[in-house]
Amino acid sequence: MSLLVVGSIAFDCIKTPAAEVHDVLGGAAVYFSLAASHFSPVRLVGVVGRDFPESHLKMLADRGVDTAGVEVAGGKTFRWSGEYFGGMNRRETRSVELNVFESFEPKIPARFRESEYVFLANAPPSTQASVLDQVRKPRFVMADTMDLWIRTQRSDLDALLRRVDGIVINDDEARLLTGSESLVRAGKDILEMGPQRVVLKKGEHGGMLFTREKVIPLPAYPVAELRDPTGAGDSFAGGLMGYLASAGNVETASFQRALARATVLASFTVEDFGVRRLLEARREDIEQRYREYCSLLRVE
Amino acid sequence: MSLLVVGSIAFDCIKTPAAEVHDVLGGAAVYFSLAASHFSPVRLVGVVGRDFPESHLKMLADRGVDTAGVEVAGGKTFRWSGEYFGGMNRRETRSVELNVFESFEPKIPARFRESEYVFLANAPPSTQASVLDQVRKPRFVMADTMDLWIRTQRSDLDALLRRVDGIVINDDEARLLTGSESLVRAGKDILEMGPQRVVLKKGEHGGMLFTREKVIPLPAYPVAELRDPTGAGDSFAGGLMGYLASAGNVETASFQRALARATVLASFTVEDFGVRRLLEARREDIEQRYREYCSLLRVE
Repeated sequence: MSLLVVGSIAFDCIKTPAAEVHDVLGGAAVYFSLAASHFSPVRLVGVVGRDFPESHLKMLADRGVDTAGVEVAGGKTFRWSGEYFGGMNRRETRSVELNVFESFEPKIPARFRESEYVFLANAPPSTQASVLDQVRKPRFVMADTMDLWIRTQRSDLDALLRRVDGIVINDDEARLLTGSESLVRAGKDILEMGPQRVVLKKGEHGGMLFTREKVIPLPAYPVAELRDPTGAGDSFAGGLMGYLASAGNVETASFQRALARATVLASFTVEDFGVRRLLEARREDIEQRYREYCSLLRVE
Repeated sequence: MSLLVVGSIAFDCIKTPAAEVHDVLGGAAVYFSLAASHFSPVRLVGVVGRDFPESHLKMLADRGVDTAGVEVAGGKTFRWSGEYFGGMNRRETRSVELNVFESFEPKIPARFRESEYVFLANAPPSTQASVLDQVRKPRFVMADTMDLWIRTQRSDLDALLRRVDGIVINDDEARLLTGSESLVRAGKDILEMGPQRVVLKKGEHGGMLFTREKVIPLPAYPVAELRDPTGAGDSFAGGLMGYLASAGNVETASFQRALARATVLASFTVEDFGVRRLLEARREDIEQRYREYCSLLRVE
């Protein structure tokens, strides 16, 4: 089934204790698309500047990502620069240049408007809502958000939460959104705000899925050599939505298989800088790690 | 099969954001014994002062804990006082009075010396080693340790690690012991120090089991209302060793079933203060949560 993602396309500068890279392809919607593309064609809506090389768009297209919704605006592409410390649990943003992303008003191409699966990558909640105004009866809509919108655009965010089927949110954001120190309590409280499914992410510690019926722990795949955590959350979301779109339903069993793929995609992403490992991994590598992961968790 | 535990018996004062209790029964060997006793008889070796009420010993005996190895020394029982903050991720020790535990020299009763499963709860590594000098050919020996011994008694600890089959260690201790920020790397490095099995604990985030062949994630059971984290790690160890002793083997499949029981026992412990919930839970409650936990992790 069809899968639409709307969100940032960026150039990243990333520094870790081990190495540093400059102006590599990044952005939430890019990580999402490349992860999802292992399972399903992807429709990408975003904005880039005139400095964005055609070769990146071609690479995305070669991967089954329809870039018809990528607007080329006058100005420069969104740039993010950050540094990771120690065991990479701590990240500091060194600079953010929103550039063309600052005035991003997503325009969903006519042929994308009947997309059945929709992912609203991190953006102001009013921008995310404008996407929902343009699509017709999607089967499953999932959104990401961030601390900034929780602090500054709470009523827009509350309204959005009532319109989506699922949300992905990290531990600190969940605490901020609910005021609850307990993550289990926080996840349950977010369900009360609207979404049927809450995926609470805890970085290297994995995450938890909350539904009306259950709280399902989602341990991370144990990666031996973590090189760059950038994009792990968006790769997780891409693996999740890409697999769901390919399965064509969001029943609990499909959802759990999708979450396991999501975990696997995130584990590939962090093994190398930027999107490198996402591009390198083949579907058979993903399925092999998926089987290994499921078997590690299975108590016989 | 027979199970021996050697370690502290204490009175605890515990303060959390919700409540405070004074002089409740605690200590690593007590949590361990009560958790393990749900699966197997337990042989307990420890020391208490003359202030330790007979009723606690009787309660332990009623639970299938053989207290013949509990020495009553002149002086007061070990006392610990601590406070938890926020989401209970942060603990501050307010006071420690070692009292009779300071000069604890475990004397293993003759009829405990052929114990097949042995748990060395946290104590100076030389004290733990003295237990191994007194037992005959145990099948499986597991030890706990702490940051203090890693810092101050490293050569004793290194020697102990070469004599045990398994170790339970928390995340900070594992980093301190190996100098590795990556927990996956740290766990693998500890395997190189001797033990065949390393259980790396991450508190509310669960843990990981390291063997020569695999790294198995062990997510925590999602507890809705965490009331007191004291004793969670020792209850985990008790559930693990108690189940292994009842299974009579340490093959990988049994070990995974034991780890799932361990997770469940820890989850009960944190639901109430002190050992209260460990005493209250019935075997059928444990098995029901065990089945639920396994099913949450199973990707069909």
